Amino acid sequence: MHGFFLQFLTYSEQTAAVIDGKMMADEIRSEIANEVSRMKNEIGKVPGLAVVLVGERKDSQIYVRKKIEACEEVGIMSLMTELPEDCTEIEVLDAVSSYNVDPAVHGILVQLPLPQHMNEEKILNDVSLEKDVDGFHPVNMGNLAMTGRDPLFIPCTPKGCIELLLRSNVEIMGKKVVVIGRSNIAGLPTSLLLQRHHATVSVVHAFTKNPEKITREADIVISAAGVANLVRGHWLKPGAIVIDVGTNPVEDPDSESGYTLTGDVCYEEAIKVASAITPVPGGVGPMTIAMLLSNTLDSAKRAYRFP
Amino acid sequence: MHGFFLQFLTYSEQTAAVIDGKMMADEIRSEIANEVSRMKNEIGKVPGLAVVLVGERKDSQIYVRKKIEACEEVGIMSLMTELPEDCTEIEVLDAVSSYNVDPAVHGILVQLPLPQHMNEEKILNDVSLEKDVDGFHPVNMGNLAMTGRDPLFIPCTPKGCIELLLRSNVEIMGKKVVVIGRSNIAGLPTSLLLQRHHATVSVVHAFTKNPEKITREADIVISAAGVANLVRGHWLKPGAIVIDVGTNPVEDPDSESGYTLTGDVCYEEAIKVASAITPVPGGVGPMTIAMLLSNTLDSAKRAYRFP
Repeated sequence: MHGFFLQFLTYSEQTAAVIDGKMMADEIRSEIANEVSRMKNEIGKVPGLAVVLVGERKDSQIYVRKKIEACEEVGIMSLMTELPEDCTEIEVLDAVSSYNVDPAVHGILVQLPLPQHMNEEKILNDVSLEKDVDGFHPVNMGNLAMTGRDPLFIPCTPKGCIELLLRSNVEIMGKKVVVIGRSNIAGLPTSLLLQRHHATVSVVHAFTKNPEKITREADIVISAAGVANLVRGHWLKPGAIVIDVGTNPVEDPDSESGYTLTGDVCYEEAIKVASAITPVPGGVGPMTIAMLLSNTLDSAKRAYRFP
Repeated sequence: MHGFFLQFLTYSEQTAAVIDGKMMADEIRSEIANEVSRMKNEIGKVPGLAVVLVGERKDSQIYVRKKIEACEEVGIMSLMTELPEDCTEIEVLDAVSSYNVDPAVHGILVQLPLPQHMNEEKILNDVSLEKDVDGFHPVNMGNLAMTGRDPLFIPCTPKGCIELLLRSNVEIMGKKVVVIGRSNIAGLPTSLLLQRHHATVSVVHAFTKNPEKITREADIVISAAGVANLVRGHWLKPGAIVIDVGTNPVEDPDSESGYTLTGDVCYEEAIKVASAITPVPGGVGPMTIAMLLSNTLDSAKRAYRFP
C-alpha cells in the first residue's frame, strides 16, 4: 500500500502531457494534401467525397460543414445531398445509389443520426462496400472483428484514437486497455481495432458494476460513453494514458451558443493522475476528420490503382 | 485478507457443480426432433443440412460424422460432398454454389480447416447468407458485433456456451466475464455474444500480461484457447463459473486411439475452486452440435415461413 500512495503523491504534483490532436491532424492533412496534388498532377484525378444530410439538426449541420471544409482544404472534391427531415427513405436510398455508381465519388458518408422514421440499417447497408469510408457496413465491421481478414475501411474515430496513440509513441501490444462505451460508431469498433493491435481489451458500459475499479487497472483508457465528466481522477491508474472521445454539450450561459463541449473525462482531475491525455476540443475530434480524408484518399487510390 | 482465505478454505473443501452439457444437449435435440416432426406433418418438408468436407483429416472426419449422425437422429436431412485434399478451390466453390441454390438445403457447413492452398475467406464468403448456419460470414459476424442489428445465425460454439449458462440459471448481465482466446470460430464470437447479453467482457490472449490475474477477477470464465490445462486452479476466483471450450488431444498410451481429449482448464484443480464447471468431454461439445441443428431448423422455418 505504501508504494501506491508514494506513486500517487508523485503524480499528483505532476501534470500529464497533453496529446495535441489538432497538431497531429494538421500534419496528416498536409500529408494528404500532398498526395492529392500528386494524384492530380500524375493522372488528372482527385478523390471525391459525397455527403448525404437528412433533416435540420444543428449539430449534424456543423459536423458536415467541418468535413466539407476539410475536403476543400486538401483538394478532395466534395458533393452534398441535403434532404428535408420529412423526406422518404427511398429518396435517401436514391441519393446513395446515384453516388454508388458515380465514378468520381470514392467515399459516401450518410450523416447520422437519421430521422426516426428511417431504417438506418437498410440505408447504411446500401452504401457500396468500396465507398464505405465510415466503415459502418456490416461486412467491413465483420472483417474488422475477424483475425486474418482486412476491412476495406476502418471507422474514422477508432482509427483516429489509435493514430493518436501511435504518434505519441505509446505501445499498444500487451497493454491493458479499457474502452468505456460500446456504440456502433465509436466504442465497439475501437475495441475491435485495439484487439487487432494485440491489446488486452475490457469493455465497460452502463451495465458494468464498479466501472471505476476496472478502469483503474487500465494502462490506456479510451472513453466514448457520451457522458460529460463521467471519468473522475480516482478512476485512473497513476500514469495511465487517457483518450477522450466524448464531445458532450454542457449548458454554459457565458458561451455565445449557450453551451460548451465537454469530454467524458473530468480533465482537471485526470491531468493530475494520467501521464498523457487528449483535450476536448482539440483531441480526437480533429483526428476523426483527418481519418475521413485519409479513408477517402485510400479509396480513390484503390479505384484508380494509383500507388 | 482474512475473509479471502476463509472463503477459499470453504471452497477448497467443496466440489463444483458439474454442468452436464450432454444432458442439456439431449433435451434440446429432443425439442428439435419434435419441431422437425411437426414441420413434416404440417407442410411435408424437413430441414436440410449440407456438409462440405475437403481432405482426409481424421479429426474433421470424426466431427462431420457426429454432425451427420445428429441430423439423422432428429430427422434433419443431410447431404455431403467429400473432396480430395488436392482438389481445386473452384471445385469447393462449385459445391457451395450448388447447395446455395438447392431449395431443400437450409444450412451449409464447410468443415474447417480447409487445405492450406485454399482461400478460406473466399469460400466462406460464398456461402449464402441465408444458409450460413455456422455464422462465419462477415455480414453475420458484423451484425453480431453491432448493437441493434440481428445476425441471421449465431455461431454454434458461442451459442452453446450461452445456452449452458442460461440453462444453469446463471445471470450474465452485469457479470465480469473473461474470454480466453480470440479465434474467429470460438473466442471472438463468444465475446461479441456476451456483450449482447450485457456482460462486462475482457478478452485474454497470447499477448496478455498476467492472464491469471485478469482471469481471477472474473465471475464467469470461458476458455477457448486450445491449450491443454492452461487454466489452473489459482487462475480462478473462488465461486467462479467455468465453461471449457477446449478439446485438446493429449497423448495417452492407455487409450485405444493413443490420445485423450483434454480441456483448457485443469479440471481437478478448478473443481475445488469454481462453483460450477463444464467437463471435457460432455460439456460444450454436445451443445455445439445441438446449436447447429437448432440453426438449421430455424433456417428451414424461415425459408418455409413455418411458425
